[in-house]
Amino acid sequence: MTDTMKQIVLASYAKGNPKPSDFRLEEVPIPTAGERKILLRTLWLAVDPLFRFAIDEVRLSGALHLELGDVMVGATVSEVVASNHPDYAPGDVVEGRTGWRQYAVVAPDQADYRGPPRKLDPSLAPVSTALGVLGMPGQTAHGGIETLRIKPGETVAISAAAGAVGSIAGQIAKIHGARAVGIAGGAGKVQALLDLGFDGAADYKAPDFAAQLKAAAPNGIDCYFDNTGGDVTLEVFKQLNRGSRMAMCGYIAYYGMGYEGPGPDHMPALYRTIMGTGLEIRGFAGFMAGQKALDDIAGWISDGKLTYPEAVVEGIEAAPQAFASVFSGHDFVGKLLVKVAEPA
Amino acid sequence: MTDTMKQIVLASYAKGNPKPSDFRLEEVPIPTAGERKILLRTLWLAVDPLFRFAIDEVRLSGALHLELGDVMVGATVSEVVASNHPDYAPGDVVEGRTGWRQYAVVAPDQADYRGPPRKLDPSLAPVSTALGVLGMPGQTAHGGIETLRIKPGETVAISAAAGAVGSIAGQIAKIHGARAVGIAGGAGKVQALLDLGFDGAADYKAPDFAAQLKAAAPNGIDCYFDNTGGDVTLEVFKQLNRGSRMAMCGYIAYYGMGYEGPGPDHMPALYRTIMGTGLEIRGFAGFMAGQKALDDIAGWISDGKLTYPEAVVEGIEAAPQAFASVFSGHDFVGKLLVKVAEPA
Repeated sequence: MTDTMKQIVLASYAKGNPKPSDFRLEEVPIPTAGERKILLRTLWLAVDPLFRFAIDEVRLSGALHLELGDVMVGATVSEVVASNHPDYAPGDVVEGRTGWRQYAVVAPDQADYRGPPRKLDPSLAPVSTALGVLGMPGQTAHGGIETLRIKPGETVAISAAAGAVGSIAGQIAKIHGARAVGIAGGAGKVQALLDLGFDGAADYKAPDFAAQLKAAAPNGIDCYFDNTGGDVTLEVFKQLNRGSRMAMCGYIAYYGMGYEGPGPDHMPALYRTIMGTGLEIRGFAGFMAGQKALDDIAGWISDGKLTYPEAVVEGIEAAPQAFASVFSGHDFVGKLLVKVAEPA
Repeated sequence: MTDTMKQIVLASYAKGNPKPSDFRLEEVPIPTAGERKILLRTLWLAVDPLFRFAIDEVRLSGALHLELGDVMVGATVSEVVASNHPDYAPGDVVEGRTGWRQYAVVAPDQADYRGPPRKLDPSLAPVSTALGVLGMPGQTAHGGIETLRIKPGETVAISAAAGAVGSIAGQIAKIHGARAVGIAGGAGKVQALLDLGFDGAADYKAPDFAAQLKAAAPNGIDCYFDNTGGDVTLEVFKQLNRGSRMAMCGYIAYYGMGYEGPGPDHMPALYRTIMGTGLEIRGFAGFMAGQKALDDIAGWISDGKLTYPEAVVEGIEAAPQAFASVFSGHDFVGKLLVKVAEPA
């Protein structure tokens, strides 16, 4: 343990897709834990596209917003190094949201709605899964699928299906008896989805995307698990059946746009689709799911019904590039993780 | 009874808002009723904005679409003049969808999903109400409000609140214990809504519309009954509370636009709103409601809890101008009806 640590701060607000140069590496003293606080050493870091909204120059009402120079926000798995709090002991491994830094001090008594750092059992599953299938992305997949009220035999389409949430959502849809159809960018990802057990897949970057989707969902789409918005969603709208349902779990196509994007306005398509099909739309965010979602997922993993691809990059210095690649496109399937350190 | 009758046909597809010149008056022979058919004489005609989609040059998949020269579609109340069907007798008054003509022949055995012409009891209520509060607009108001699952004390905002559907929806919201806030164009309509019993109202044509809406809904908006889309809806989005619900029952702002309107794209606002508030959106169309809705409404009318403003123009020749005024703006509150003939 040295006296200083690395952290990554916001250097400039993102314009459009985030770039590595929007961030800056700093070397600062390792903090010490005061009364009823704990000192955490980061092991794993998630680069969730969700946090794009926090680095936009325009502050959205009610949403987390960083000032320039603030440490970038992000979900982490950490090891307790020192504890002045009775609920935590050195050596405990916890999941929290301590951001892009090697060490952080947390006050468990002053937790927000997500609660204090969640203690993990390393004997149950690799602790990195707390940032993916056994964490917020898994909860989003589980809860979003639940809002769809799938009937066996229905077709469920999933956008960003090769992502951390989508790759799990498709498998859970199959557990509910659905035909799972994944949408992703590139022939390699389409093949990876089929390898994961998806019943069909379509490449949204291909010129014949609409035909690919129709071939993958020959009976039309009954349920739509949406992580993107944008052109993918507009095509899905055209292939929905009557009485369809949509779970809105992300909108990577619109991150960084504020409330308006470049025209034309596609709201008429939304209204025609909803009125024409009776489509029902619900928003779902991972924090709305509880422990039951994690218990279900753990059971499915141990039953061999659910696999969780992970891609790992090494070192905290790699976080800005990894984060940017989530927006600019990459070839990873599943959850993209930054390995910051080995457990002591 | 003469040998000829008047009817109004589509002369040209509408571009943007419909104009009276999109229609043409014709004089044609009165048809005769063949085997198991009935001859109807039109008494009342509704000019429902809904049917705008049928006179667009672009055919929407699955939707009713007129050819040039076709009689304009519309809901009607008629009197049976001659019957070759055992279920109908001369003098019966029925509600159907026979369009803008003085007489029509109908085959009750070949009804579509709406069923055969619905027999009315003129002793229960004026028969014109079958086109408004005791017909499809009333069913839309009742069913749309039901999808909102209002909790007493919640605030319900209604767009196009001075219209046939909105004016009823606001009153039903109050019956469910809600604070009803109407949105309409012009100070006169705002006053008319307050006179109808709305708890608050806002004028979307006023420069301080956002502030008016905030003053009318000081605790924010929990439920939104939307008949319009467009700028009104975008402002409502900003004033929604967490856990809010939206019933989408019409989209007059987008009629005639197909799937795209002029930019910017407001889909980012939709996604941010849904993900930020957990907003749930459901579409509701009047035909989805059953007889129970009409029974409830009839009960509320007889209990004095529901009033139903009507505006009447005279003569079938007035239909094109009346239809156009629904889009270009008018000062009527409630259901706009064309009186075509007195009962025999």
